[in-house]
Amino acid sequence: MNCGKLPKAVVYENGSLFILDQRKLPFEENMEEQKNVEDVWASIAKLKVRGAPAIGIAAAYGVIVGMKDFFSLPVDEFKNIVSRRAIYLDSSRPTAVNLSKALQRMNTLAVNYSGDSSEELFRLLEKEAENIYLEDAEICRKIGLYGKSLLKNGDKVLTHCNAGALAASERGTALAPVYAAYEDGINVKVYADETRPLLQGARLTAWELQRFGVDVTLICDSMAAYVMSRGMVDSVIVGCDRVAANGDTANKIGTLSVALAAKYFKIPFYVACPSSTYDFNSKTGKDIVIEERASNEITSFAGVRTAPENIKAFNPAFDVTPAGLITAFITEKGIISKPYDINLAKLFKEGCML
Amino acid sequence: MNCGKLPKAVVYENGSLFILDQRKLPFEENMEEQKNVEDVWASIAKLKVRGAPAIGIAAAYGVIVGMKDFFSLPVDEFKNIVSRRAIYLDSSRPTAVNLSKALQRMNTLAVNYSGDSSEELFRLLEKEAENIYLEDAEICRKIGLYGKSLLKNGDKVLTHCNAGALAASERGTALAPVYAAYEDGINVKVYADETRPLLQGARLTAWELQRFGVDVTLICDSMAAYVMSRGMVDSVIVGCDRVAANGDTANKIGTLSVALAAKYFKIPFYVACPSSTYDFNSKTGKDIVIEERASNEITSFAGVRTAPENIKAFNPAFDVTPAGLITAFITEKGIISKPYDINLAKLFKEGCML
Repeated sequence: MNCGKLPKAVVYENGSLFILDQRKLPFEENMEEQKNVEDVWASIAKLKVRGAPAIGIAAAYGVIVGMKDFFSLPVDEFKNIVSRRAIYLDSSRPTAVNLSKALQRMNTLAVNYSGDSSEELFRLLEKEAENIYLEDAEICRKIGLYGKSLLKNGDKVLTHCNAGALAASERGTALAPVYAAYEDGINVKVYADETRPLLQGARLTAWELQRFGVDVTLICDSMAAYVMSRGMVDSVIVGCDRVAANGDTANKIGTLSVALAAKYFKIPFYVACPSSTYDFNSKTGKDIVIEERASNEITSFAGVRTAPENIKAFNPAFDVTPAGLITAFITEKGIISKPYDINLAKLFKEGCML
Repeated sequence: MNCGKLPKAVVYENGSLFILDQRKLPFEENMEEQKNVEDVWASIAKLKVRGAPAIGIAAAYGVIVGMKDFFSLPVDEFKNIVSRRAIYLDSSRPTAVNLSKALQRMNTLAVNYSGDSSEELFRLLEKEAENIYLEDAEICRKIGLYGKSLLKNGDKVLTHCNAGALAASERGTALAPVYAAYEDGINVKVYADETRPLLQGARLTAWELQRFGVDVTLICDSMAAYVMSRGMVDSVIVGCDRVAANGDTANKIGTLSVALAAKYFKIPFYVACPSSTYDFNSKTGKDIVIEERASNEITSFAGVRTAPENIKAFNPAFDVTPAGLITAFITEKGIISKPYDINLAKLFKEGCML
């Protein structure tokens, strides 16, 4: 297939860090240079970059942005700056696990460095951030390869929210199988839920698929069940934010509706995710705390009010899909089938996951 | 309870016809005088007035708007004008059954008039339009009374789209039980789905409930399953556009998703509708033609583009909820339970319906 170029959420090039401002997509494609750590903090806090893996990568590079100016400092002072930056960046968003994990890796490397060259430490940190990027890219690539095996020529895949290239290093999770299939000449068509209230499906998923060359059709979230009822969907693939030990899965609000419709119409419902998304501290979905966001995300759009003044609105950002509705998980370690409590634990014990 | 005033979609007062421009709700509340039949045609075509019963009422009055100027005409010429107007108004929207039915009633009355006074015929037509209004008001009132019996103090009801006062003569269908309960001091709380793409839930349902005094919380369509999963909903009540002989029900796109979630979480799912909504020519939902609307309803909002240029969008306006997902129908003749093929036919045979 003649493949277009996938966008990159975060680019580190010749010592300079760039972040794509996703709030302006698909209408403006601005790779904004991050001059200092404050820029990176604001880019994460203001959702210029979103998607758990992409946030982790941005934060890792954020630790070293502009640190070249401090090569002349004693290494202990250099380490102190790294630690302060890690704490500072960790405050940019409250819930993304990958953010904390990436910053911990960067800080641990600095703390454990036993040499006396700030420049050498900088190079090691730069390499660590690159590793975080490359590891995620490899995970996405493998999810793509395993997931591709579930798709056949002519398949129509429905997805919700954006778990694509823009949410990760490259290729994403839920969209990785679609991209891998398309590269192999397997003709796959995608229905993208627009994903209210922030329209990540309309603005991001539709855009990156279109750019790559994949045949994509935008629908409202409320239309997913209808297109399934009409036999227009062969499988559903979504990403996820957290998987409990029993397989219950938290993902963008609306995923549960899609899963219920898929179950009713006997359509396979797959969750694509890196194994790091598993949270064995959450026994079931009931242990997962659901973030509630501001009501004005629902009551206005692009500065235009869409609902009466003083109306109450409830705005949960995620929902939990019961394990029973999930056909399989697509991970970098392979396709995980039921029973999830046993098969997820097995994968965990094999040391494949954090 | 201290009840606020419900809005009226169509008002005929001292020989003048007014239509509330619902496109501007809830931000501007303009009762626009309809000076001539062209005004009424445009009000229906441009969705200033929507909701099948409200459209029928507007069209009935549309036939006689400004006809006072023609009292001096011979009665045959007066009848010709009525017939031409009925045909003209019937072309304002393609699918609303009530539009054709109301216009047929008006025209039949004129054709069958055997007197020789244009003024007398005008008075009879005026009375017929009023009858169409009053009959609908009585149907809505009865749906409210029957439906109220399904609600108890403290109940939380979820609804989709707008089947309220703004969609009918008064009180509406799906919201009529809520209004009746509230008037009786039964404390009912409502979750209103915003109803993409045209936001009838956010703009109309939330507004009329708030105005009346009912505790209403706005959610995105994709959140309905989540609020049900959290035990926050006791019953669902929706309106409908067409019911097939077996009970399969066409309603605003997204209704099917809500019904699937209600089934999964064991929450009663009620369809409120006048018996005239039954279509025995449609044996099952497969016989119901689903209108597809323009893609720009999805790809832009309030003139602001929300999706990439040249993106494909699929925009079905309705979906079909299988009879098996419906707990009962709330009609002006009472609550209709399963088996629907038998119980709907029984009601039909009793001559309760057109």
